[in-house]
Amino acid sequence: MKVLKYFLIFIPVSLIGELLHLSQPMIFVFSALAIIPLAGIMGESTEAISHYAGGRIGGFLNATFGNATELIIGFFAMKAGLFDVVKASIAGSVIGNILLVLGLSMLVGGLKYKTQHFNQKVIDVTSSMLLFAVIGLIIPAIFTHTVASKLLTTRYEGLSVVVAIIMFAIYILSLIFSFYTHKDLYATEAEEESAPKWSLNKAIIILVAATIFIGIESEIFVGTVEPMTKAIGLSEAFVGIILVPIIGNAAEHSTAVMMALKNKMNVSIEIALGSSLQIILFVTPVLIFLSLIFSPMSIVFNAFELIALIFSVLIANRLASDGESNWLEGVQLIAVYIIVAASFFIV
Amino acid sequence: MKVLKYFLIFIPVSLIGELLHLSQPMIFVFSALAIIPLAGIMGESTEAISHYAGGRIGGFLNATFGNATELIIGFFAMKAGLFDVVKASIAGSVIGNILLVLGLSMLVGGLKYKTQHFNQKVIDVTSSMLLFAVIGLIIPAIFTHTVASKLLTTRYEGLSVVVAIIMFAIYILSLIFSFYTHKDLYATEAEEESAPKWSLNKAIIILVAATIFIGIESEIFVGTVEPMTKAIGLSEAFVGIILVPIIGNAAEHSTAVMMALKNKMNVSIEIALGSSLQIILFVTPVLIFLSLIFSPMSIVFNAFELIALIFSVLIANRLASDGESNWLEGVQLIAVYIIVAASFFIV
Amino acid sequence: MKVLKYFLIFIPVSLIGELLHLSQPMIFVFSALAIIPLAGIMGESTEAISHYAGGRIGGFLNATFGNATELIIGFFAMKAGLFDVVKASIAGSVIGNILLVLGLSMLVGGLKYKTQHFNQKVIDVTSSMLLFAVIGLIIPAIFTHTVASKLLTTRYEGLSVVVAIIMFAIYILSLIFSFYTHKDLYATEAEEESAPKWSLNKAIIILVAATIFIGIESEIFVGTVEPMTKAIGLSEAFVGIILVPIIGNAAEHSTAVMMALKNKMNVSIEIALGSSLQIILFVTPVLIFLSLIFSPMSIVFNAFELIALIFSVLIANRLASDGESNWLEGVQLIAVYIIVAASFFIV
Repeated sequence: MKVLKYFLIFIPVSLIGELLHLSQPMIFVFSALAIIPLAGIMGESTEAISHYAGGRIGGFLNATFGNATELIIGFFAMKAGLFDVVKASIAGSVIGNILLVLGLSMLVGGLKYKTQHFNQKVIDVTSSMLLFAVIGLIIPAIFTHTVASKLLTTRYEGLSVVVAIIMFAIYILSLIFSFYTHKDLYATEAEEESAPKWSLNKAIIILVAATIFIGIESEIFVGTVEPMTKAIGLSEAFVGIILVPIIGNAAEHSTAVMMALKNKMNVSIEIALGSSLQIILFVTPVLIFLSLIFSPMSIVFNAFELIALIFSVLIANRLASDGESNWLEGVQLIAVYIIVAASFFIV
Repeated sequence: MKVLKYFLIFIPVSLIGELLHLSQPMIFVFSALAIIPLAGIMGESTEAISHYAGGRIGGFLNATFGNATELIIGFFAMKAGLFDVVKASIAGSVIGNILLVLGLSMLVGGLKYKTQHFNQKVIDVTSSMLLFAVIGLIIPAIFTHTVASKLLTTRYEGLSVVVAIIMFAIYILSLIFSFYTHKDLYATEAEEESAPKWSLNKAIIILVAATIFIGIESEIFVGTVEPMTKAIGLSEAFVGIILVPIIGNAAEHSTAVMMALKNKMNVSIEIALGSSLQIILFVTPVLIFLSLIFSPMSIVFNAFELIALIFSVLIANRLASDGESNWLEGVQLIAVYIIVAASFFIV
Repeated sequence: MKVLKYFLIFIPVSLIGELLHLSQPMIFVFSALAIIPLAGIMGESTEAISHYAGGRIGGFLNATFGNATELIIGFFAMKAGLFDVVKASIAGSVIGNILLVLGLSMLVGGLKYKTQHFNQKVIDVTSSMLLFAVIGLIIPAIFTHTVASKLLTTRYEGLSVVVAIIMFAIYILSLIFSFYTHKDLYATEAEEESAPKWSLNKAIIILVAATIFIGIESEIFVGTVEPMTKAIGLSEAFVGIILVPIIGNAAEHSTAVMMALKNKMNVSIEIALGSSLQIILFVTPVLIFLSLIFSPMSIVFNAFELIALIFSVLIANRLASDGESNWLEGVQLIAVYIIVAASFFIV
């Protein structure tokens, strides 16, 4: 979305705000608004570089760095010791992608076209991978909440690393699946690509610049979370599960909605579900590996995050099963999202 | 079912019983038996009025007032402060419709016809709406049981009102969906209608009379719940989750089973699932709105109601996915229902 | 698998070990290795006898005694008072069949054939029965963990018996379904049978001998569980949920994998899901009935077993819904299994 580009003005605004020691809630808003267009530019430059790299390596690059913003925000939040925010933002990204992004896509697409169709076979692969991935991800947490509540935390951290290794291995294997052994399954998607608007050199420079700025803005943003939540009375859980994912994914989300308006529901759904999958199989294990540098982070979600995750993924699987969507399905997804958000808001 | 009409004798019987101060369990039984035929007559008169109203308004009337009995019983139970019975009866209506009504329909239909087929597309819409609705309904309860156990109850009541507003909005939107934007999807159902047996004036008088008598009998019925449960040793949970839904839905249930015997599984399933959906999207929010008059009722189900709800809805979605039914599926649904009932019975 | 026959040597080895009072972990391993080929021989002789019995009675025999090994191990574990091991091994058999056996079958089959197809209709019946059965099985446990935690345990045992009776009734009804009323549904499977390698008399003698030896070895095996878990530091939960099911099902499992290698995924999946179903509908109720002889065993699974069960069954239903499998689905199933096993291992 071109209009998001104007938000780049919030980079200097947030930096100046930080220098002038403006109030924390203001800096929170400015840095958040700065991250939104940066994430979009990062995505576009990654896509351009992938285009030049071509074929499988390009596909691999695009798939892997598509969620770099979440990774960077997560890294700085982890560095600041905000483990609960990191975990909430992982859960929130998955929930937001499935309920909010897919809901909005189905709603706006469905208002324009009576019934929208998508390739059930491709979506089936992604949505059932998502079911397995979420179940794998949450088993240690469920275990912790039930059987093993008297165990030492060091053991959970060990279990988290095991899960991270398994998730990462499945990530690599899923790339092999989609770029080598079963690449014909995804053939229909190829038409989406158009010529990149930047040369390779320019794309690389833009990517590096965007990454640096996202890093800076993420550090500012993360620094404001604690004082801001205290000042305004919002909970850290709400920031983690609702706000961070919206900020990190805004650019991507607008693409999904735009594709729905062009009646390309396949692409919309692949963005929403594929992004969720990458959060679980790539971003989460990498954050756990990185956490070993500071202090080990276990991926023990709280009970409500668990349930919101498993419900979202059940809904995604239900939706995928009929190959069709309409505006009422969109409304219902958004309604579930609002109820989740309202629940976190009242804490 | 014509035989139910003879149960009307229990209207005077229960009133006389109340005057003569008969034992509470006896009055409980008499008033329950009086409500059964009244609910049936109410449904028939609503249908007749809908027929005269015709087209969309008729469909709207029929859909909206189809569960008036549950609403009236719920209202008087709420007025008597029996919040747990109200909540249990909401959960019990959904569970009973899916497990007992659908189970009986599939069993008796399946004994007559080897395999019964239904329109998977229509059932798919209803069953996936049911999944979303149940998830939306139970999120606040799950939230309460997990994250937020130390919160003030006033906040839950606020959350309940938010959920009620969202549910009610989805109800209105779903009527727009089925009577305006996607009415062709439901076209095949139309053949069911036959000429009403009453004139419009007569139907209105009958409806008003039935509503008044249901009100009276509900108030008597509700008044006996507490003394009766103490006298007999049944739990209020059992009354709410098993008995109230059977009483309120008996007439409707017999229709579903009869349609299955005529090999019209589409109609049977739509009655069972559609009725569950109306309980969640219409009866529940209206009861919550009404509760604001007395003292606000939160829709925080207990953990077992939650799980029974989500399992029922998973089963409904599983059943809908293959477009076929047989007697063994019916037996299994009834078996799950019996296990749920037995669990509540032993408390 | 012929190679398993050589394991018969562990019958004398374990018996001698027992006489010589070898260390408990060694006897544990020897008796486990002895049970593996015995279970295989038991299965083969049952199949041979079923072949001679022919038609429906044969099918019935084969279906009913296919899980005799689990029953015998369960019986001796129950006799030794190891109720937690029994319950864990019931849950573990279901989980192992769905995640490990199906996962391995899909993986090795998928490495040989790009996409493997199976008869969605037959698998649909089995997988939806499995969903109902698991839900029925776990409702009393969920009830116990939530609503009724202050109840007397005698009431749970009563509820367990009710559930056992219902499960057993459904088992009988499902045999009537598959051998009488809907036997044409399963017609395609028949081609699998080949001439038995033993005469009827020989098969009966072999069956009796195998049953006796399994009984002896099971008693030895069960006797080592407690001292061994203490010596090595493994938990009883891990032994029950992971080791016992692998030992009891190894022969059957190798058949499932072999069928996948022959691109007969129908048979592989039916072995995995059908075996899970028999554990729930036949082995579990029989064990509960038998427990009334010693001291009544309630089927209250712990929370993690419950969740692992319901997740496994959701995964099985998801897999069944598209009629296709590939190596990546196999990898994901195994990954979930490893995460479950790792969780129990760290306790």
